[in-house]
Amino acid sequence: MKADEQIKAVSFVAKSGTGKTTLLEKLIAELRSRGCRVGAFKAVSHQFDIDQPGKDSYRMAAAGAEATLICAATKLAFVQTHSEQPDFNQLLSDYFQNVDIVLVEGHKRGDLPKIEVVRQEPHEPLLCCSDGYDPSYIAVASDCQLDLDIPVLDLNNPAVIADFLTDFFHI
Amino acid sequence: MKADEQIKAVSFVAKSGTGKTTLLEKLIAELRSRGCRVGAFKAVSHQFDIDQPGKDSYRMAAAGAEATLICAATKLAFVQTHSEQPDFNQLLSDYFQNVDIVLVEGHKRGDLPKIEVVRQEPHEPLLCCSDGYDPSYIAVASDCQLDLDIPVLDLNNPAVIADFLTDFFHI
Repeated sequence: MKADEQIKAVSFVAKSGTGKTTLLEKLIAELRSRGCRVGAFKAVSHQFDIDQPGKDSYRMAAAGAEATLICAATKLAFVQTHSEQPDFNQLLSDYFQNVDIVLVEGHKRGDLPKIEVVRQEPHEPLLCCSDGYDPSYIAVASDCQLDLDIPVLDLNNPAVIADFLTDFFHI
Repeated sequence: MKADEQIKAVSFVAKSGTGKTTLLEKLIAELRSRGCRVGAFKAVSHQFDIDQPGKDSYRMAAAGAEATLICAATKLAFVQTHSEQPDFNQLLSDYFQNVDIVLVEGHKRGDLPKIEVVRQEPHEPLLCCSDGYDPSYIAVASDCQLDLDIPVLDLNNPAVIADFLTDFFHI
């Protein structure tokens, strides 16, 4: 991918407990099986730990390293602390130049194309049309029959969602 | 730091079991206490796991994501698989623009400035002079008295090694 080309990214949004990660897991495997290089980007509001106490990388970060990189022949891992939340689009550009599509979880803001995940019959207005229709929503993935002006994709059929995405992004 | 400025990096090399990570841990804390932003870069020859089974990031990588980024307000973590070992200098440039110095472990090749770590009286030739003196070695850190043509720094005194590095790199 050329550096100046727009990163192809789609955000999966839902009310909490809707099983977004489970969907993403299936969708990653589906896209991967088609030869697609997939990136996953999870924006979290809480603190998290990825590393394990006692490991060298953990020790270096605990000692005060702001940036810790471990690199092996087939994998690298990087952990960085920052005082200001980095810009979302800059992160996309910095970390996902080598993939064909990025599946994003936990980023509702901005005009990134979005798919709303709806499990079971909703009792509240959908996020995509809670305050008029938000044009950044390109589809809804649901296990219910919903009557909407945007495509409603079968939540339990990752192949259908993968088809939709490869078509939408011309991958 | 400007993007075109050389990243200031030093590699700590030793025969295995010499306690490089312990030294780096102390040195990171010492440099950090002086207001220095420190990066740590560990090159490993074996496979490694940084993530923990069951966590979302682990699940996405396990499903086949080539690049997984988790970002919170104060920290980010990135894991990427690659088919070819990335270029060392490119990694330095890609991941350590925001620090003042990078302490490297496990990278013996190339002309990066190096400090050899020698614990206890060596019975074999030192790496820095096993095949004639290698000019990329800028010092030895040891707990022994050694008679060398390059500075021998006290391995158990991280402040002395920090002084040497800040002086060497004009930090």
